[in-house]
Order: sequence, then structure tokens, then C-alpha cells
Amino acid sequence: MLPKYNVLTEEQVLIIHNESIKILEEIGMDFEYEPALKVFRDQGLKVEGNRVHFTREFIEGKVKLAPAEFTLHARNPEHNLVCGGENIIYMPGYGAPFIQLADGTRRKSTMQDYENIVKLAGASKNLHMTGGTVAEPQDIPDEIRHLKMIYSSIKNSDKCFMGSAEGRERAQDSIEMAGLLFGGKDVIKEKPVLISLINSLTPLKFDERMLGALMAYAEAGQAVVVASLVMAGSTGPAALVGTLALQNAEVLAGIALAQSINPGTPVVYGSTSALSDMRTGSLSIGSPETALFISASAQIARFYGVPSRSGGGLNDSKIVDAQAGYESMMTLMAASVTGINFVLHTAGILQYFMAISYEKFMMDDEMAGMLLHYLKGFNFDEDGLAYDAIAKVGPGGHFLTQKHTRKNHKKEFRTPQLSDRAAFDAWSKEKLDTNQRAHKQWQEVLANYVPPALDENIDKKLLEFIAQRS
Amino acid sequence: MLPKYNVLTEEQVLIIHNESIKILEEIGMDFEYEPALKVFRDQGLKVEGNRVHFTREFIEGKVKLAPAEFTLHARNPEHNLVCGGENIIYMPGYGAPFIQLADGTRRKSTMQDYENIVKLAGASKNLHMTGGTVAEPQDIPDEIRHLKMIYSSIKNSDKCFMGSAEGRERAQDSIEMAGLLFGGKDVIKEKPVLISLINSLTPLKFDERMLGALMAYAEAGQAVVVASLVMAGSTGPAALVGTLALQNAEVLAGIALAQSINPGTPVVYGSTSALSDMRTGSLSIGSPETALFISASAQIARFYGVPSRSGGGLNDSKIVDAQAGYESMMTLMAASVTGINFVLHTAGILQYFMAISYEKFMMDDEMAGMLLHYLKGFNFDEDGLAYDAIAKVGPGGHFLTQKHTRKNHKKEFRTPQLSDRAAFDAWSKEKLDTNQRAHKQWQEVLANYVPPALDENIDKKLLEFIAQRS
Repeated sequence: MLPKYNVLTEEQVLIIHNESIKILEEIGMDFEYEPALKVFRDQGLKVEGNRVHFTREFIEGKVKLAPAEFTLHARNPEHNLVCGGENIIYMPGYGAPFIQLADGTRRKSTMQDYENIVKLAGASKNLHMTGGTVAEPQDIPDEIRHLKMIYSSIKNSDKCFMGSAEGRERAQDSIEMAGLLFGGKDVIKEKPVLISLINSLTPLKFDERMLGALMAYAEAGQAVVVASLVMAGSTGPAALVGTLALQNAEVLAGIALAQSINPGTPVVYGSTSALSDMRTGSLSIGSPETALFISASAQIARFYGVPSRSGGGLNDSKIVDAQAGYESMMTLMAASVTGINFVLHTAGILQYFMAISYEKFMMDDEMAGMLLHYLKGFNFDEDGLAYDAIAKVGPGGHFLTQKHTRKNHKKEFRTPQLSDRAAFDAWSKEKLDTNQRAHKQWQEVLANYVPPALDENIDKKLLEFIAQRS
Repeated sequence: MLPKYNVLTEEQVLIIHNESIKILEEIGMDFEYEPALKVFRDQGLKVEGNRVHFTREFIEGKVKLAPAEFTLHARNPEHNLVCGGENIIYMPGYGAPFIQLADGTRRKSTMQDYENIVKLAGASKNLHMTGGTVAEPQDIPDEIRHLKMIYSSIKNSDKCFMGSAEGRERAQDSIEMAGLLFGGKDVIKEKPVLISLINSLTPLKFDERMLGALMAYAEAGQAVVVASLVMAGSTGPAALVGTLALQNAEVLAGIALAQSINPGTPVVYGSTSALSDMRTGSLSIGSPETALFISASAQIARFYGVPSRSGGGLNDSKIVDAQAGYESMMTLMAASVTGINFVLHTAGILQYFMAISYEKFMMDDEMAGMLLHYLKGFNFDEDGLAYDAIAKVGPGGHFLTQKHTRKNHKKEFRTPQLSDRAAFDAWSKEKLDTNQRAHKQWQEVLANYVPPALDENIDKKLLEFIAQRS
């Protein structure tokens, strides 16, 4: 496997760390949730209203308690995932309210879309888990949406999935359902099965909803991604390093809270920081600045010895066009080569998180496969060196018919799933672009997908739980 | 500036070096040009027919004579380029016989296309030189095509350009014309102004055409890129490391020839290695394997202490669609972060070098701008840290109206040229994709471009030379 790309010097990482400590000590952070404030008071920190003033010792001491890596368990153990270290985990986009259609129009996401995307992620060779809130099903009442989504994640794939981060109650529902699936809450307390996305409210706040979920998951021994989305120029400074320092302060505070509640809670260091477009004020995620935030964040997380999370196929395009391609590859490649462990939004995202697209999903799945092949790197064994084949063919010869070629090409070369390598004349017969090919492909994958069987008794219990909570 | 990404260990680079030496010693290489064979015989090497058997001492000794970096001079000294070290040079595609049009059709390239692309490269903020054979003008007779191309490169931009590599005679014509432009051949012998592309004939051969050009340029003190395009699986083994060893052997032999003729000749280590698609046998350049060849080559060239060359926006797509975007970004980003110095084919290429596209050119120019911003990295001064702004805004505040934001956003953030960041509704008014926006953009750039004035006396001499040689 290729080594990780470090974009900062060790000294620069330390500068960012020290800036964040200074922010947490001198400015402090607001926590809009009394139980969280109580935790900090009990730890001896200065709390004034909602404002918590941290100390270097507290932050550094708590962050040390977080594990460097942990295993996330799937109902099919073949899909268990190690989060941290050398490992990379790709998954679908998260939270998009719209479905962008292949013809350039869009509509609200539905429960059917959620199910379809879980199935596409389940079928993928390149995506390691099915994620969570893969589409925001707007045809389901808000109060029961999380129950339906988690059920769909369980029913339609046996890969790992995410819990609800919408407050303490929905987190607890997620934990209850995971308990039913895995044989009890005591079982999953020892082996985490859920991972959930806890976002700060930049600058320098956490709200009740996110804190409630964070505390519920930490108490239950489930993993949390603590992430900050600084919009440089609006919710953060128009400065890359300052943005990283602000993000880092927020993430460290969230990690310290989780470790205060339950030392050793599996946490992931999350960055979603991006730009505020200065002409419109809107979020922009498909930029080189985002790629820099991602790249630095991988390294900062390594400095703390915790797994990292960033976005993946990020872009500002409205459709699956060239911009969607080059922006998404820039950010996904940055995440992949710098060693991000948990790549949320690997597949499907368009329009700075506003939409998910089936066609974009297939495109990103292809990119994920390409990047996994790139990361695999080089094979230096005898077959990889190929000296005998080179000597046998000699100057001016040809390798196509060599035994070495037949033996090795499938191992050394990746076969594309979606990309077109035809000559111009062959391509010209149908003249399909990537969007059109992807449109055909996801329908075929969906038509052929058979969800893995779910134990009937567990299925019944899950449905009873949902009925009771609805 | 960001550090270079090294994908190999030092030991792995050494293994590739030793494999190449073994190839050159034990198998040898064919040179189909008597003057080149004479050079090698004079150096005391064993030559049998066209086959030259090299020794480790000879290769290692000659490669040491090549400069680590050199300055390529432009007629406008502001556009002089340092090739090597930390520097990156982006330029247009090279050698495409077709123009791919925005509607998905294609036609043969013409002299007008050549001129247009030189102008677009001249106008670009992101491309550092105008390149050479930016389109293959098929409406000009082959014998005088090089004269017309070089004249167009001189006339339509004052950036650096490339010479003809089509044999000794055309190389000498290129040198004569450069001499007329820069005040004599003795002047340019001391300060190189031309750089030319010398390709091996894989596996393990160089033909008369390329060797004649290499020798003419080396004698005249002009720079040469010595490049190998191994098609792994057909003209090279179905093995990534074996392909690199084969490429490396060929490039080392070419560099050693240049240094034997004129010690200190500026040379660039070139890799164009890619895949042979195993289903069709055709070249495929938009693959993760190509990105691996590029990445390793940057590091191998650093091992030898010479500047490196690879392709840039490489892809197998027939049109400016998502595939063109993600494949091109993968290879251009690989070249950029691993430290390739001379990035041929940065802009315009489609269909594995068969076509150049104006729309693709504008797309790649945008990508080049994005990557230059990424490579610039982070600003750690006081404005970059932005602590005072963060403290002033505090928890829950907003940065948009801060003085710090107004002062810094233009320095810290890049404004896109082509990428669309509009919200869905604003975009929906015209629904333009990248291809359509780029189609408008290149015509505007071309309409507004004013070529820098050329001294009338020089212009006259150049035209007289062309008339005399035609």
C-alpha cells in the first residue's frame, strides 16, 4: 500500500494545535445543553452560562484516551471494518434533501430513494459501508424518519451503517434497534456497531440536538464522528490555517466530551470545512481549498492518534458533468492519498450536499475503485519485476501473447466499471456520455440486487419496535 | 509550497534502478542510427549490429552529468522557466491528429487550430508555456509543417515553446529559427530556448528520426525530454514495476547518449507509460495505473537528480463529460503532487492522445489553476492564523463583515474561471454543463487575445527562412 501523503511539517501541525488550545482556553466554547455543561463542571472546568473555558491539560489528557483504531461490527462479519490506521472506508453521501435526476431536474428525496441507495451501496465492490441518511426521505414524517431509515439500512444490506444524530431520543432509538439486531445493548457496548455524525455549530458552539446524541452514543459505547464544517469566510475566517485552528478547537472539545463521559469511546476526527463563495455567500465544497482542509485534517488526526473523517466526492456542480468529475476526483483523491480513514460522501453528492444523484453515485463508485487500485500501489515480487518476460521479448518484440501477460494482467490492471475506453468509431454508434451510461448502470444494479436475508425473528422485533415508537 | 508526495520507498527506487541496469547490460538496446552507434562505440561500449550493451559505470556516470535544473528562455524574459527542483510547468497537449468538437463529432486538425491553441495557451494564467505540436495541422504538407508550427508558436505568444523532434533536419530547422529569434545559434547554445520530445520505440529501441533530433539538439545545447511510452501488456509486461524498469532503461540510455554528445545537455526524464486495454489492445491513459506510473516516475527522476516529465490531463473519454473530468484530474493531480516538473498534455487531450478539444482545454486550464492553488499550500503568518478575528467574532458570530475577511479572502481563496457555484435555481435558468460553458469561454478568450508584438526585422527573417526551406 502507498504511504500517506503529509502536506504539513510537524512544526505546522503543532502550531495549529497550539492555536486551537489558545482558542479553547481564552475564548472558550458554548454548549447549549445542560447535561454537557454538568459534565464539564464535574471535570473542574470553568463554566459561565453556556460558555466553557477549557485548559490545555484537560484537552490533551482527554484526547489521549481515544483509541487509535477500532472495529465497527456488521451483521455479516465479513463486512466488519477497522476504522483507523492504514484503513480507508468509503460510503455514500449523507443528508441530501433532493434527488438530482439525469435530465437536469430535481425532486425531493423519498424513502424509496433511501432504500435504493442502500442497495446500490450494498452491491458496490468499492464502498465499504452503507452510511446513514443516504437520502433525506421527505415523504416520511420527521418523528419516525430515523426509525424507517435504520430499518432500511438493516434490511437491505449486511454492511455497517450509521445511527441517527438527531438528538438524544433518536440516538437511543438507534441504539435500541442495533441492540435488537446484535443480541442486546450489553453486547454492542463491548463491540461498537453504530457510528454517528456529530457536528459542531461553527463558530465555537454545539447545540442540544448534537450533544444529546453524542452523550447517548458515548454512554452506549458506540462510535461518534465529531466533525466541524467551518465555512471559511462566513462561519470562519478567510484564512486556511485559521479555519483549521477553529475546526480543530471544535473537534477537540467534542472528543474531550465523549472521553469525559466514557473513556475510550471510539471517536473519529472529522473535517467538513469548506469555502463560503465570496460572491454569493453560499457554501462551496468542490474547491482546492477544501482539498487542502481535507489533506491537513488527515495529518492533524494522526498527530492526535485518532482516525480521521472528511468528505469524498465533493463538488458544486448541479449535474453529472465534467465539473462534477474533476472536483469530486480532486477531493476524493486528496482524502485517499493523505490517509483519511472514514470517507463520508464518497458517492452520490452534487450541489454542495443539497442533492444526491444515482448517476453521480455510479460515477463516484468507479472513482473509488480507481483510487483503491492506486492506493494498492506496486507489486515488487518476481512477477511484478517481470525481468524474464522483458528478456524473452527483447528489443522490438511484443508482450501480448506472453504467458506472463496472461498470468498477471488481471492482478496488475483494474477493469473499469463505467469508464469508456472504446475507440472513437465504436463509441460513435451510441455516443453515450458518462451520465447516460451511469443512468443505465444503476438501474441494472438495482434490478439484480438481492438483499441478504435477515433473521425472521429479528425482523419481527424490529418492526414491533418501530410500531411501538411510531 | 506543499512537499512532494513520494509513493515508493528508497529501497524500491533502487530495485527499479538495478533492474534497468540489468536490462541495459544483459539484454541491451537497439539504436537504428549509425551516428548514435558510433558515439557508443567511441565510448568503448560493446555494439553488435544495432544492439548496444551498456555497463552500469557508463550509465551511472553519464546520468550524473545531467543538470538538476536549467532555465528555458522565452522571448519575453518574464516567461523564462526554471525546469527542475520545486517548479512545475504546465502546457497544452501534444500531437493530436483530430479536433474533437463540442457536439461530439470530430475532424482533422488544421493550422488554424494550431494557432488558436497557441493563443489560448498564451492567454492562460495557469499554463506556463505554449508547448509544441499542440495540434497536428493536416492541411499543411508534412515537409513544411514544422516550419509553420514553429513560426506560429513564435508569432502568437512570447512564452517558451518546443522544437520539432521529427528527425535531424527538422530539429536543425527549429534551431535555425530559434537562432534568428534570439540573436544567433551561439547565443542559444549558452541559454537553451527549445525543448523537444524524444521518444523511445518501446521495447528497447530508438529509431533514426528520434535519434537524429536528439543528437542535433544535444549538439546545439538545447534541452531534450527523453521519454518512454510503455504500453503495459503489449509493448511492455503486464506488470507495473516491470513496466517502470523497462521505461527507466530506455530513458537512461537516451539521457546517456545526450550526455555523451554534449556533457551537461539539459535533459528531462520522461514517462508516458500507460496501459494496453486487455479487451481491445488499444492504449488507455486515464487509468489509476497511469497515475501510478506518473507518481513513481517523479520520484525516480529525483533519484537521478534530473527534472521529470509526465502527461497531465490524461483520459480515454471521447467528449468533455464526467469521465474526462475525473480521469484527467486523477492524472494531473498525481503529476502535480508527486513533483513532476514538466507536465506535457496538461490541457486539451481527449481519446488517449487522438484528439484535442477546445472545451477540454478550458476545463484543464481550470484544473491547472485549482492544482496550482492546492500546491501553494498554507500561509502561516499572522493573517493566516487569524486568531484575532476568531477571538473578535467569538462563539456563534459571523466573519463575513470582518475587516480580516475583506483583507484576506482574495489572497487565500481562488476564484474559479469555469466551474459553476450557483445555486440550483440560478443554474436552472440556462442549465449549461461544463462543456457548454467552456465552448462559450474559449471563443471569448480567443476573440480578446492580442498576440505580443514581434520585432519586424526578426519576423521578416523568419518568413524568409521558411520561404527558402519550403
